[in-house]
Amino acid sequence: MTSMITVNVELGERAYPIHIGADLIGKTELFAPHIRGSSVTIVTNTTVDPLYGDALRKALAPLGKDVTTVVLPDGEAHKNWETLNLIFDALLGARADRKTTLIALGGGVIGDMTGFAAACYMRGVPFIQVPTTLLSQVDSSVGGKTGINHPLGKNMIGAFYQPQAVIADIGALRTLPARELAAGIAEVIKTGAIADAAFFEWIEANVEALNRCEPQALAEAVKRSCEIKASVVAADEREGGLRAILNFGHTFGHAIEAGLGYGEWLHGEAVGCGMVMAADLSVRLGHLDEAARERLVAVIRAAHLPTSAPALGASRYVDLMRVDKKAEAGEIKFILLKRFGDTLITRAPDDVVLQTLDASVGA
Amino acid sequence: MTSMITVNVELGERAYPIHIGADLIGKTELFAPHIRGSSVTIVTNTTVDPLYGDALRKALAPLGKDVTTVVLPDGEAHKNWETLNLIFDALLGARADRKTTLIALGGGVIGDMTGFAAACYMRGVPFIQVPTTLLSQVDSSVGGKTGINHPLGKNMIGAFYQPQAVIADIGALRTLPARELAAGIAEVIKTGAIADAAFFEWIEANVEALNRCEPQALAEAVKRSCEIKASVVAADEREGGLRAILNFGHTFGHAIEAGLGYGEWLHGEAVGCGMVMAADLSVRLGHLDEAARERLVAVIRAAHLPTSAPALGASRYVDLMRVDKKAEAGEIKFILLKRFGDTLITRAPDDVVLQTLDASVGA
Repeated sequence: MTSMITVNVELGERAYPIHIGADLIGKTELFAPHIRGSSVTIVTNTTVDPLYGDALRKALAPLGKDVTTVVLPDGEAHKNWETLNLIFDALLGARADRKTTLIALGGGVIGDMTGFAAACYMRGVPFIQVPTTLLSQVDSSVGGKTGINHPLGKNMIGAFYQPQAVIADIGALRTLPARELAAGIAEVIKTGAIADAAFFEWIEANVEALNRCEPQALAEAVKRSCEIKASVVAADEREGGLRAILNFGHTFGHAIEAGLGYGEWLHGEAVGCGMVMAADLSVRLGHLDEAARERLVAVIRAAHLPTSAPALGASRYVDLMRVDKKAEAGEIKFILLKRFGDTLITRAPDDVVLQTLDASVGA
Repeated sequence: MTSMITVNVELGERAYPIHIGADLIGKTELFAPHIRGSSVTIVTNTTVDPLYGDALRKALAPLGKDVTTVVLPDGEAHKNWETLNLIFDALLGARADRKTTLIALGGGVIGDMTGFAAACYMRGVPFIQVPTTLLSQVDSSVGGKTGINHPLGKNMIGAFYQPQAVIADIGALRTLPARELAAGIAEVIKTGAIADAAFFEWIEANVEALNRCEPQALAEAVKRSCEIKASVVAADEREGGLRAILNFGHTFGHAIEAGLGYGEWLHGEAVGCGMVMAADLSVRLGHLDEAARERLVAVIRAAHLPTSAPALGASRYVDLMRVDKKAEAGEIKFILLKRFGDTLITRAPDDVVLQTLDASVGA
């Protein structure tokens, strides 16, 4: 596969391209138009740097920039201020200026932290996303959400900040552990479920190809997911309304992640299980029919994602969901499914939420 | 004096009013239009809370909001991540949501940190500035610059983020220590010098009234300074060009602050001395005549501001100026004066900069 697809995220003066294809990390010409200053700082982690760091540095070499690399510890557990500060220390140590470009080379944690560092360093410097996981290719590299976790909540501190470009190298997924591949497929399933019934059917038919990491299937999944998310984000950049539908499965999912401690379950695994729970609640409230719920659970299971929630205790679930960013004055807002491609956002009676929690835990 | 003046900062959908007058902190009707959610978090410090905290809480009481107060340690030395985190801890502890309004009650440090916390908390919540120092009334409450210091540089981490409103209570200046009043006058002098020769002449004629904290003179100084700064910011919100003139005196001033350790000299004192140094450099490079330089030094001295620079050593000054946010690839950009109301931004030969440093230190 040598073709490259480009999805444009239309955000006026903050518009940017997402390039999708195999072996893009080594392509100098994809980086050249987006680096205007004299220096570049690559932010990556201990897992990804040995795999793709040299390829990226080789691609940048012909541009004659002063390139430095910051290698962070790997994992969601490090998505905090201490690790973010390592980026600032490196930037100031290298005398990075307002035209220095940051390049995020890694998964969603690296992308979110690098984007937030770019948003804050000298009140804003340019950055490029090079997502190396399926999850970050389909999800966190589109939409400009950046940030870090706080012990009391995920992504509680951050900024809306758009990259100059996203370079999604499908080839980098060859080295992705199976569990992380599945976590990425969770967001692909979510995108189809909330926004596009035809794409959902495509996923049902191709989930095994995705599991096998087939490049054509992955490229199609990334392209369609990015197109859908880009159109939602373009309509609602600052998350005033429509954009909230992208959080289908996330209200329950964030509670699972926070309750177990970040990093215990992968974000995509928590979203997978969270979608099962949101679908259960949708059926109980009479919005979704049982057959659709079963189809959603079947495809989540086929992607080797968890469908039973961890036993945190119902009151702990409710407490954690009340501090979710979508909550208002302690009222939890649920994104529910009406049918594939159609959602609604609503509050839910406590007793029905408890029924869903009861039915979902260790089922 | 019971009149109130309002200056509007024209930034499209981010436009906001600055209300200037005596005893405004107690006026419920000034806060009411800008608080939409159900909760408010006041951020203040150990010095200001005992003076004006109760008045503000009393003004908010009729609005029926859930009001919490975070009291931070006082001073520029605390303008760092650890202190900022106290705000996030309090917000999460109080279950603040996306509609919670932050109110900054204090000087520039409180305003900058509260604004940055508002920019980052859940990726952005509304905030109101209630500046209680002359410096913050004339300077840091206009323009949307927020942030914290890094050991290697001042305000290196931050965001451009606009408040909903600024409520500048001239009455609060009665309790301001003389040294901090002078530091505020420094920014008033700067504003006249760079942008408005007639205002500069007004300052020369009224500097003693400002020193005596006369309300009419202070209100006029705050109003004209805010108008000028607002027009510069409206033309260049993200500091692409014109806005840089507001940093007259700041390139040298930031080096003094960083070199001595933040908090040793007040920001306004460093800017006062920095303007003397920038004027010296302006004369040496043939841009400013000696008579104008002497007028500028005379008014800075009349405001009881330092006109001799601390002996940090020339190479340390140069190192510190090279990491200034306005520097590019290590090249220092100086904002120089051509005449009152007119500036230019330029690089300068090293040997001439050294002459200025030599002439300014301990003179």
